[in-house]
Amino acid sequence: MLNENVMVFLQDNLDFWPHLSADQQSNVIAHTSIARFTKGQTMHRGDQNCMGLIMIRSGLLRVYMLSEEGKDITLFRLVPGELCLLSASCILNQITFDVHIDVEDTCELVSVSSHILSDLMTDNIYVENFIYKRLVDRFSDVMWAMEQILFMSFDKRLAIFLVDEMSKTHSTTLRLTHEQIAKYIGSAREVVTRMLKYFSNEGIVELSRGGITIINPTKLKSLL
Amino acid sequence: MLNENVMVFLQDNLDFWPHLSADQQSNVIAHTSIARFTKGQTMHRGDQNCMGLIMIRSGLLRVYMLSEEGKDITLFRLVPGELCLLSASCILNQITFDVHIDVEDTCELVSVSSHILSDLMTDNIYVENFIYKRLVDRFSDVMWAMEQILFMSFDKRLAIFLVDEMSKTHSTTLRLTHEQIAKYIGSAREVVTRMLKYFSNEGIVELSRGGITIINPTKLKSLL
Repeated sequence: MLNENVMVFLQDNLDFWPHLSADQQSNVIAHTSIARFTKGQTMHRGDQNCMGLIMIRSGLLRVYMLSEEGKDITLFRLVPGELCLLSASCILNQITFDVHIDVEDTCELVSVSSHILSDLMTDNIYVENFIYKRLVDRFSDVMWAMEQILFMSFDKRLAIFLVDEMSKTHSTTLRLTHEQIAKYIGSAREVVTRMLKYFSNEGIVELSRGGITIINPTKLKSLL
Repeated sequence: MLNENVMVFLQDNLDFWPHLSADQQSNVIAHTSIARFTKGQTMHRGDQNCMGLIMIRSGLLRVYMLSEEGKDITLFRLVPGELCLLSASCILNQITFDVHIDVEDTCELVSVSSHILSDLMTDNIYVENFIYKRLVDRFSDVMWAMEQILFMSFDKRLAIFLVDEMSKTHSTTLRLTHEQIAKYIGSAREVVTRMLKYFSNEGIVELSRGGITIINPTKLKSLL
């Protein structure tokens, strides 16, 4: 990207942009870089590096927690258009946990260095506010992931239902609405939609207008 | 509390106070109330009520998540001097999960209605910033609780709980049922009973009808 394009990109993605002075704006541009990561790389490793704010232009990233024993829990995925601040936790006193980020699909991202973010946060309430707000957005994502794992019921229930339907209809394509599924398994449509989206992100199903296609039955059955 | 005292209390506890206009300040005072809850009450129940911002003056509250099946996970506790905004989640679009709050020790709290908070949040960046900042504070608390549950081996978790209780109550005898312990550390009663039996066999605790006596605190602490 040319410097001109970087500015447009920052303007479009950072709500606080109009609240920065001209000096602050050029300072941010000077501390913005573009990076490419290839599939399979670990981009961010707990407290071992501090990448600052990252904004995804293309590709797919997985944000997860890792235990000392190597147990791994997916918190959320990052798709183009999204940004992440957990990669800047070194400058955020309130964030005391560490996450890891893997590249699931070769990606290009724009990052603003943690150093400049930290300075701006102190000087400018709009920057501070933007950072906290975006962190709170992730709070709910993470809680959702945790609930699935801790209460360990709904993914299993939905998987059982899909496997049953597959064997009943002798087909991997199920012509059912989310509403119908919710009714059958005694849940709410929103909950079904959310979990199907999760299954889709995990490469288990493919969603279309007509219904649900199970593309990885082995992975689906592993949830039972 | 007299109105005068309410003002001093709000001033001391809400960082955004100096950034409010005189009108906004009196509006907040008018929408502030004092409430008392007795031990054992459920003060806040998921999305069924919206208490607004609560500030604890005395007592002890437990904030937890509850699954459809009744499984319960403690997220954090609230002690005097602390405040909580998850009880105002109805006005925060970003918070899509529900928490419950139980009164563990009869408490007095000051609450600011969600209605006025919502208005102020839109009008005043300092209020918005305060709210997001305090939510981010809790993000780490909750992640810590989750990590304990997801990653830590169970003996360690139970040991941490017992050591905490010992220092809180200044006693080596804990008057708690296995059921209660399971609830507090987000496990099942059977699992707690099994591990306590193991601790008892190891000469760490002595079990009786009335509770649990820690007879070898050094050995218990070696598990941490």
